[in-house]
Amino acid sequence: MQNFRFQVTHTDPKTKARTGLLETPHGTVETPVFMPVWTLGSVKGLPQELLEQLGITILLANTYHLHLRPGEETIRSLGGLHRFMSWNGPILTDSGGFQVFSLSGLRKVTDEGVEFRSHLDGSKHFLTPERALEIQSILGSDIHMVLDECIEYPASQATAEKAMNRTLAWAEKSLRAWNGLPHFEEGKPAGSLFAIVQGGSYADLRSQCADRLVEMGFPGYAIGGLAVGEARPLSYELMEAAEQRLPEDKPRYAMGVGLPEELPQFVARGMDMMDCVLPTRNGRNGMLFTSKGRLHIRQARFAADPRPLDESCSCMVCRRYSRAYLRHLFVSGEILGGILNSFHNLFFYLDTMRRIRQNIAAGDFSQFLSDFSSSVQGEVL
Amino acid sequence: MQNFRFQVTHTDPKTKARTGLLETPHGTVETPVFMPVWTLGSVKGLPQELLEQLGITILLANTYHLHLRPGEETIRSLGGLHRFMSWNGPILTDSGGFQVFSLSGLRKVTDEGVEFRSHLDGSKHFLTPERALEIQSILGSDIHMVLDECIEYPASQATAEKAMNRTLAWAEKSLRAWNGLPHFEEGKPAGSLFAIVQGGSYADLRSQCADRLVEMGFPGYAIGGLAVGEARPLSYELMEAAEQRLPEDKPRYAMGVGLPEELPQFVARGMDMMDCVLPTRNGRNGMLFTSKGRLHIRQARFAADPRPLDESCSCMVCRRYSRAYLRHLFVSGEILGGILNSFHNLFFYLDTMRRIRQNIAAGDFSQFLSDFSSSVQGEVL
Repeated sequence: MQNFRFQVTHTDPKTKARTGLLETPHGTVETPVFMPVWTLGSVKGLPQELLEQLGITILLANTYHLHLRPGEETIRSLGGLHRFMSWNGPILTDSGGFQVFSLSGLRKVTDEGVEFRSHLDGSKHFLTPERALEIQSILGSDIHMVLDECIEYPASQATAEKAMNRTLAWAEKSLRAWNGLPHFEEGKPAGSLFAIVQGGSYADLRSQCADRLVEMGFPGYAIGGLAVGEARPLSYELMEAAEQRLPEDKPRYAMGVGLPEELPQFVARGMDMMDCVLPTRNGRNGMLFTSKGRLHIRQARFAADPRPLDESCSCMVCRRYSRAYLRHLFVSGEILGGILNSFHNLFFYLDTMRRIRQNIAAGDFSQFLSDFSSSVQGEVL
Repeated sequence: MQNFRFQVTHTDPKTKARTGLLETPHGTVETPVFMPVWTLGSVKGLPQELLEQLGITILLANTYHLHLRPGEETIRSLGGLHRFMSWNGPILTDSGGFQVFSLSGLRKVTDEGVEFRSHLDGSKHFLTPERALEIQSILGSDIHMVLDECIEYPASQATAEKAMNRTLAWAEKSLRAWNGLPHFEEGKPAGSLFAIVQGGSYADLRSQCADRLVEMGFPGYAIGGLAVGEARPLSYELMEAAEQRLPEDKPRYAMGVGLPEELPQFVARGMDMMDCVLPTRNGRNGMLFTSKGRLHIRQARFAADPRPLDESCSCMVCRRYSRAYLRHLFVSGEILGGILNSFHNLFFYLDTMRRIRQNIAAGDFSQFLSDFSSSVQGEVL
């Protein structure tokens, strides 16, 4: 695939962790990387100026939402997603599948694709593997995701297998469609296409799905349908079952994860990319991640606390604002509270990934893995 | 008064407009100046970093809100309002009177002061002229406002006169209290105290009120109770009736005004300071002020418009984002829309004041006055 390359730069001797460089049409990303989520065309409450200040290198945008509003044709007429959003870095787009499958009662799946009704106006849409890619291509995504069938947890093995087979059939159609997409002919940066490993909570299905996707040959592989309610040891087991079948020279993306203490755990299992709405969603709800554990800013004990959220954090918020001020904003319902909290949480996630990369490069990752998880999980005292 | 000085630097030959320098304990402010409103401890949605980027020099904070939450004693324990909010520039605090008088049914006025119930929890509070100043002093305000009695519009002359007399009696008490405030003894920056001209919609009362306040001798004078529903020509007439009695060497503050086209009109009538929630409130509601008139970003005609809000604006938003993107954020209910809109509107207000100051200094203010008003009032075509 043109304009796309992945290179492993360091490997950890004791785990599957590695650092890498992901080259995309809009720049190179150091991995492991955390991708903030740009649901409706903004990382909730944060101007792009602040995203740049955070050192964000790659964003995830939701195809489903952008397809419904403002629509990919409007975005095309405005010069594509990067220009529309004024973001010149890499963008990964999901296929829309996950959002559509969340519309239970509003959607119907067949082998051809998924018919759904918009959550906005009830209008009918039909998403096929080809159409999902076409939309992402029109948006001008750097990394396209195939349409997959997501299932609920728990689900029977028969249900999981049926969805896995459909996901595999759609992956095959996607690869064919991808190779025929018109943008290849125009000499434009084409970005890349990632497949998605499904298989529910069954390790053997996960391995089988990975094997068959690898046979097809994709530039990158995602693990989908995890962190949907199952206990974390099972998530890790399922991830390992897929990962051991994936080629080492391709990037791996753990979709929709996770909590801070989980990030190095996924990295230790060979994951290079992650995304999650937790830093911004929890930030808006007043839950802060710090190096000493969780901090619920609403608590009365912070009402006159002059300290920063995290004394060892160097983010814009911790350098300037006190817990007392942030609590005041939160309990007063001021949106600035959610903005500053989201900024800090995103910084914490990005900083965690920076530290992970540094520790892998320095050969200290195993030590980091055990120290970090034990320090960030509890409540701030 | 220590740490407070006002100096007129240029006067317009044809109007009462003038430029000046207002020295406060936290820095010098070029006038005429627009003061954004920091209601609950934030300019809605804008981190202090963006306020600095806007070039804001002085903020208005609401004593009523801060008294109720987090309370002035908490703010004192955290080092005062400047430190609490991490804002090192000048702060003007209102007396709380205007908010209290908005609590119709929840307050009772006597000659001693005003008893009111919190809009938050119904708890009972009593605000006297002395207490209003004490709270502002504890907050560490640069410019304190006296407690005044605000009335509704329309009101009879008898009602207006009674409220004016009470306002005058309170001003006298305030001046006495001010001179005895403990911070004078501690050698701390004491800031300044402004009186407020009331008198309802009666020009003779306005003149009379101004005369008596000037006899008492304050470092600055505000005109209150305007823009409360009366037609603008009447506002201007009432302002003139007060202004002509005010000393030229003291700053004048038109409270709670106004629309962009009104700003130079107030300046032409000798006003040096103004504040208003319109730029942020209208921004959140999708109404943008531009050099070509109002722009309602919700309108469908902006859905694919690649132009900035205002092609002649150099603000962060106009340099980077399209109308199409801002409309998308707004119709999607993304808070980033309100943030970027508020930023632009505040920039427009501040830029208007910059241009006013430049035009006064250059002797071109009269021309500016007529050109500006006609260009900014309509709808953007």
